[in-house]
Parts: sequence; structure tokens; C-alpha cells
Amino acid sequence: MNDCVFCRIVAGEAPAAKVYEDDTLCAFLDVRPVARGHTLVIPKRHAAELEDLDAELGAQIFRTGHRLALAIRRSRLAADGANLVLNDGTAAFQTVPHVHLHVIPRRHGDTLRFAKGFLLRRPHDPISTAAAIREGIAALDNEGTSPEKETEG
Amino acid sequence: MNDCVFCRIVAGEAPAAKVYEDDTLCAFLDVRPVARGHTLVIPKRHAAELEDLDAELGAQIFRTGHRLALAIRRSRLAADGANLVLNDGTAAFQTVPHVHLHVIPRRHGDTLRFAKGFLLRRPHDPISTAAAIREGIAALDNEGTSPEKETEG
Ligand SMILES: [Zn+2]
Ligand SMILES: [Zn+2]
Repeated sequence: MNDCVFCRIVAGEAPAAKVYEDDTLCAFLDVRPVARGHTLVIPKRHAAELEDLDAELGAQIFRTGHRLALAIRRSRLAADGANLVLNDGTAAFQTVPHVHLHVIPRRHGDTLRFAKGFLLRRPHDPISTAAAIREGIAALDNEGTSPEKETEG
Repeated sequence: MNDCVFCRIVAGEAPAAKVYEDDTLCAFLDVRPVARGHTLVIPKRHAAELEDLDAELGAQIFRTGHRLALAIRRSRLAADGANLVLNDGTAAFQTVPHVHLHVIPRRHGDTLRFAKGFLLRRPHDPISTAAAIREGIAALDNEGTSPEKETEG
């Protein structure tokens, strides 16, 4: 598995700006982001395509993507929405053969910037961006213990 | 909820070519498909955005999308892969305000046809397409009880 860049990130053998990690998966910034805060969620255990991925682990990846989409809305990135995208197979433009879910923060009126991001795919200060997302996750965690969510509208 | 077209489909008040249904969610062909077999998975209970969606229900939607991606590879549609896409929020190009996961079948070398599909979004014989996907689901179900999967390569 040493030739898989995502397995090397999991093993700590390749650098990544991690935003979340647990026993079975981890999330880190895409090194060629389409937008600031563009994050990938991957299983720690190598699976090339959905065909090779345990269904429960797939559900767990999506649960984390869902949570990240809520977290970035609460972060300094102040996203208004997100695209969650999983490209399964080279026919579907999957470039790294280790299953990954893209979570791409979106803002109202960003269509042109978004299109430009697809062409440029340049990093945007990964250290502060990853910190912002972790703060959003913490804000979301705090809501879980608060009754305020009910009245949020 | 009567003004939500997806809630009307769930209630049987609007037509749809359904490919899968259980207690909590249903899957049907997109009426403006990007590619043949383009399917939407939705929760039966209305949720406008991920913000409003129960995490477990989100995981269940993804489990079904994962399963559909495997099913279309086994169907007459003979897909080589799929794009799983969830656009959360109008900022992220979500058009119908009821959470939906797109499952878009892909084939090797379909890039041009895929681009054209984005422009045309024309139905491709929905009755036989939905039947093909249901057959793929049945084929996948049969594998679950068969030891042959191990030797598939
Ligand atoms: Zn790997
Ligand atoms: Zn609805």
C-alpha cells in the first residue's frame, strides 16, 4: 500500500492538513482545492473503489461529510452550502485510487470564483483553513449539548 | 409540504420511475438526467438541506447510493463507475429544496457524452432504464448469498 498517497497520509508518512480523525477514517484538506476549505474524507483502510468498500464504512464517511458540511457553515469560512462529491472509478474522474469524499464549501454568488477554482486549484493558507474547520467542528459539538438549536429557525 | 415535488413523489401524487423504496427513503430516475440511469435518492420525510437532516438518515441515503453504484455496474446499463453528488444549499446549485443524492452512471470514454448530457438533460426511456437498475439491485442481492464474489477479481 506504500504507493498510495492517501495510505501514506493515514500512516503519517506524507504531510496533510488534517481537520478530523477517528479510528476508521480521516479528513484533510485537498492539496489542489477547488475552493478554500475543500476537504477529503477517506477510510483509513485502503479501498480503491466503492466496490471494495464496506457499506458501514461508506455510511460513516458520509456521516463525517455531513458533519463537515454543517461545521464549515459555523466556521470562519462562513460557507452557505457545500458540494459533497464521490467520484467512483476512473470513468467517473476518480484520480486517486483510494475512496474519497470531497466536501467543497460554497458561498452565495461564488459561481465565477468556483469555476476559476476548478482551473487553478491553488492552496489557500492550509494551516489557518484547517484550524477554521476544526473550530467549526467544535462549535457544532457545543450545539449538541445546548437546547438552543431548537429555536434557531 | 404539498408544494414540494419530491414530497409529492413520496406520497404517490406525482409520477416517478422508482428504482428502490423502503420505510425511510426512496430512489427514482431524475426527470432531467445527465446520463442514462441518473438516479436520485431522497429521504421520505421532508428535509430541505443537510442542516435539517438527521445524521442517521443521511448515512442511510448514502448506503443506498453506494448500493445503487454497485447495482448499475451489474445492470444492463453496464456502468464502469458513478458520480455520487449531494448539492447542499442554493449556493451549491441545489435546485429542489428537499435533500437528494445524485447517482450518475459513468462509462469509460463518456466524457463528451457526459458534457452533452449536462446541456441536454433528456430522458432515456425511463421505464426500461428503471427496470435495468432494479435488475442490477437484484443481481447484487443474489451475490450476497453467493461465494462467487471472492473470485471475481
Ligand atoms: Zn490507499
Ligand atoms: Zn419535500
